[in-house]
Amino acid sequence: MKSVVLLSGGLDSATCLAIAKADRTEPYALSILYGQRHMAEIEASKRVAKALGAVEHRFVKVDLNQIGGSALTSDIEVPKDRDESQMTESIPVTYVPARNTVFLSIALGYAEVLGAEAIYAGVNAVDYSGYPDCRPEFVKAFAELARLATKAGVEGRPIDIRVPLIQLTKPQIIQRGLELGLDYGLTHSCYDPDANGGPCHRCDSCRIREKAFESLGLNDPLIIG
Amino acid sequence: MKSVVLLSGGLDSATCLAIAKADRTEPYALSILYGQRHMAEIEASKRVAKALGAVEHRFVKVDLNQIGGSALTSDIEVPKDRDESQMTESIPVTYVPARNTVFLSIALGYAEVLGAEAIYAGVNAVDYSGYPDCRPEFVKAFAELARLATKAGVEGRPIDIRVPLIQLTKPQIIQRGLELGLDYGLTHSCYDPDANGGPCHRCDSCRIREKAFESLGLNDPLIIG
Repeated sequence: MKSVVLLSGGLDSATCLAIAKADRTEPYALSILYGQRHMAEIEASKRVAKALGAVEHRFVKVDLNQIGGSALTSDIEVPKDRDESQMTESIPVTYVPARNTVFLSIALGYAEVLGAEAIYAGVNAVDYSGYPDCRPEFVKAFAELARLATKAGVEGRPIDIRVPLIQLTKPQIIQRGLELGLDYGLTHSCYDPDANGGPCHRCDSCRIREKAFESLGLNDPLIIG
Repeated sequence: MKSVVLLSGGLDSATCLAIAKADRTEPYALSILYGQRHMAEIEASKRVAKALGAVEHRFVKVDLNQIGGSALTSDIEVPKDRDESQMTESIPVTYVPARNTVFLSIALGYAEVLGAEAIYAGVNAVDYSGYPDCRPEFVKAFAELARLATKAGVEGRPIDIRVPLIQLTKPQIIQRGLELGLDYGLTHSCYDPDANGGPCHRCDSCRIREKAFESLGLNDPLIIG
């Protein structure tokens, strides 16, 4: 059976793709270009899709910068050097309004065209506790919407919305990926990379990632490589 | 209060904008450019937004042609000269997969950025009975998703999803717009316009529109004009 895997090039979505393969689906990778400020993660998504043998890798551009409102799509500064309590205290400025809703909606259209039976998304409720659209109840509501929104759903074959990482911590995600042979050196996590695409080591995303590798007693292959 | 109005430039969404004004909201028009084959409806949306005094008019491009699957976004031929029973017998080839889900998702992001309290969409269950994402149960599911997906919803101020045309026939929609002083000569409905943007008179959309004006004993100002 076919699946659509939302692939950002980050650690979580790369792990999702590895899981979609392990689940014996034929994964079609989908990367959404949403006006983020750097291309490093797009390059990472290409490396990951190729290394893991995605059947296809499509890019859909959506100009979320036209509607603004996030440090990831506009001129608001990416926060740096925050500790864990600061990261989780409220909805962060890196929150892109309705991002997961938009991404899943586009994945739904692609799944419908392909006749895919499942969508995999690296939604995670643990490290993104401040993001409303990362919660299990959001995913459940989207699955219900998907059932009602599509020809497949109307015909009794609703597309399954799979979020295998939703309750995992970052170290647990990394462990799962390593068990599946994933090379995290291919991935990219930084919100604010340098000119060569290297990580800043100071944004929330870098700090969460680096701490997770540390807690496992491992070196992050991205930083070593 | 602010509202976001999804504006295609067609008859239904223009009526929605007129209703959003009549409801005393400050309407922010949002047009989604989704890889449709002609620009006539974009020009119509600009005319309508200007004539009705939208506070802003934003365009967000989303490359749905990258995922294919519809006569409106790919090379499948637009059906012509169909009678009413043919139009409604099954999901038509002009169905764009997950279109309303994608459009409403982007509107949701824009509404969240603006602090808008409502989204207006010209979703209609009567003339689009074959489209799963035009049914009242779809809209209800989207409203629930919107409540869970957004900061506003989490904080107890869910964005209201308004579909004032959902149970109206095309003649009823036109009557409502005319009561509100809307000039339908500004709008555009054809799926397959000629080189000058003129209607083909043969696609489902043209036929439904022309029949509606006829049934009211009126001339379509688009055709006269």
